[in-house]
Amino acid sequence: MADLLLRNTRPMGGPACDIAIRNGVIADMAAGLTAPDMPVEDAGGAIVWPGFVEAHTHLDKTVWGMDWYADRKGGPLQNLIDNERNDRNRIGLDVHRQSMRHALHLVANGTTLIRSHVDVDTDHGRSLFDGLEATRAALAGVVEIEIVAFPQSGLMVRPGTLDLMDTVLRAGADIVGGLDPCAIDRDPKGQLDALFALAEKHGKPIDIHLHEPGDMGAFSTELILERTRAHAMQGQVAISHAFCLGGLPETRARALMEELATQRVAVMTTGAPSATVPALRTLRAVGVPVGAGCDGIRDTWGPWGQPDMLHRAQILGMKNGFRTDAELEVLLDIIGPGGAAATGRDGRLLAPGAPGDLVLLQGSCPAEALSLAAPRPLVVKAGRVVARNGAPSRGIP
Amino acid sequence: MADLLLRNTRPMGGPACDIAIRNGVIADMAAGLTAPDMPVEDAGGAIVWPGFVEAHTHLDKTVWGMDWYADRKGGPLQNLIDNERNDRNRIGLDVHRQSMRHALHLVANGTTLIRSHVDVDTDHGRSLFDGLEATRAALAGVVEIEIVAFPQSGLMVRPGTLDLMDTVLRAGADIVGGLDPCAIDRDPKGQLDALFALAEKHGKPIDIHLHEPGDMGAFSTELILERTRAHAMQGQVAISHAFCLGGLPETRARALMEELATQRVAVMTTGAPSATVPALRTLRAVGVPVGAGCDGIRDTWGPWGQPDMLHRAQILGMKNGFRTDAELEVLLDIIGPGGAAATGRDGRLLAPGAPGDLVLLQGSCPAEALSLAAPRPLVVKAGRVVARNGAPSRGIP
Repeated sequence: MADLLLRNTRPMGGPACDIAIRNGVIADMAAGLTAPDMPVEDAGGAIVWPGFVEAHTHLDKTVWGMDWYADRKGGPLQNLIDNERNDRNRIGLDVHRQSMRHALHLVANGTTLIRSHVDVDTDHGRSLFDGLEATRAALAGVVEIEIVAFPQSGLMVRPGTLDLMDTVLRAGADIVGGLDPCAIDRDPKGQLDALFALAEKHGKPIDIHLHEPGDMGAFSTELILERTRAHAMQGQVAISHAFCLGGLPETRARALMEELATQRVAVMTTGAPSATVPALRTLRAVGVPVGAGCDGIRDTWGPWGQPDMLHRAQILGMKNGFRTDAELEVLLDIIGPGGAAATGRDGRLLAPGAPGDLVLLQGSCPAEALSLAAPRPLVVKAGRVVARNGAPSRGIP
Repeated sequence: MADLLLRNTRPMGGPACDIAIRNGVIADMAAGLTAPDMPVEDAGGAIVWPGFVEAHTHLDKTVWGMDWYADRKGGPLQNLIDNERNDRNRIGLDVHRQSMRHALHLVANGTTLIRSHVDVDTDHGRSLFDGLEATRAALAGVVEIEIVAFPQSGLMVRPGTLDLMDTVLRAGADIVGGLDPCAIDRDPKGQLDALFALAEKHGKPIDIHLHEPGDMGAFSTELILERTRAHAMQGQVAISHAFCLGGLPETRARALMEELATQRVAVMTTGAPSATVPALRTLRAVGVPVGAGCDGIRDTWGPWGQPDMLHRAQILGMKNGFRTDAELEVLLDIIGPGGAAATGRDGRLLAPGAPGDLVLLQGSCPAEALSLAAPRPLVVKAGRVVARNGAPSRGIP
């Protein structure tokens, strides 16, 4: 018998109780639990939250801990894409090592589920996926990693990429990725038909980056919705970024969001400070499943970011003009149970039967915990302590 | 003989040398300096930057270190203004204690000059100013604090405020503040005429909060420019926020910026994530003096922010889509010498004759130092060590 008895903790900031985790799942929640053979941790009255969900990142991209990368480029998206693809090998970006660093920092800060895109392009073949797959294997039991096969350099404009996507999905990638069917791939019908056919062939969900602004992005969103209906993929499609929803007139944005809600298409937002972003208030009000992600962290694209979902929730909160405790609790839901639901899981509230994925937070109430973003006293994955006081149990390479 | 010999440091990230500070001013910069009677600090090759300039904050507002404030409000600006004015006393917001906390955290993170607004309203009389004035006195020699008399609740709409402004300026406030002559005060001509008359009477500069968006903000900007010309106050006027400049068509925004540059009207930006903000690239290209500030930190308005100019530079960088090393160095100028110039000082480059205000930074180059935002190894104000390894020499109350 292993697993864990967590004493004296406040689930979601409510009254204190104990939580027993058996076989990776919450078995009991009550005051005064006993479990003589279990390891015990005393939470000292700290708030406990469901493990954080990083719903949009790129574990294959960070240069964290490497020599300073001085060759970042400005200009349009295509510049940044090409610069990264051309520089990966030159600077020795080892995807396994770098994704271990990135993922373990996320774990240290309370994340128990990561949805990571991985670049699939004809220059690198499946090698970037293999690097990330090695990290997934190494961190089994520490953090769950979902892998999105992501044609970062384009699908239609780079022949051979579709075959590579097929290879990587057969090799274990969980989700079909895509990006900007108009702006990058110049063939929205061609790209989206290909992606949905691939998803159908492999029986896997879809998660599409959509940086396209305004009307162009709205058009691509409509095409995605049409195919979600046609393939009966309700609940299995996500749009990442969805910048267009932040740049359209409010009534039009709301109408699109309502259809996303009807088709249960999730939105994974990063709150990108330099872009228009979908309004969290409206997304939530109309019932769109919403996840959040830190996106790339200190990579060849930019020097910004922290591998910490509380940091990202702060960025989302500032961007959306959130101030009140109720609004801060919405953010904590989005990086927690709400984010889990957006990835297709059925919400992870703290209750018997739910996964034993937990994070302790410092602060008198959930809103204060988000404002402080102090080091997490304890992180538990499926009943196993994986980080303590902001440091992962497993060393960072 | 006191002051300081700082050995083995890299000014602005350049070649290593030693810096001798005498009588508060940089006396020598060269390799192998000797000064037998001076205290010596070894920088270990760390980058040294001119002390950071916090050009827009509110030291009288933070609830940092107090019980969690759970009564923040949403809605229009006026709600937030009223809520704060009504709650200050109820929650025991002691301006002296709170401004000491806020200012000393800024010092710990490298700030050597703070421009702080202080609320002047008929509910509190001059008491908030007096609290901040006590902090200024207590921190003499630790950090320079400029005080802006700020009619947060409105000047024209709250009779008696103008007299209080006069009183506070006589009592030692350095700068005439104002806000939103249309949106809050409903009488742009009346308010701006009164503020410029007050500035002329006291021979003091002006710094006006301008949250007004689009055309309304452009109108107020024009009125400020007209009065800057009429009163010959070139180089003595600043507009804080200037959100309108981020919401106008590019050509119109640029034309306004060009006139700001001609009149040497500074823009103090906070990079407010939820608002439109003036484009730093254009402001700098046309020669507007630009300072930056963290604005309020964890106050009754909102739970966000850090008392750290590197954190603010990151927010500005993300908001402006800055990625390259050259862009990051622009941010470091804005929170350093550029910000000093925007406050009316003549730039504080590290050179003999410049103030002995310095901050050591971790990182191999300035851009990396900004990306890491690691604890500052040493902060020096006028030759005196005021913080070390992220902690101020003087205890925080």
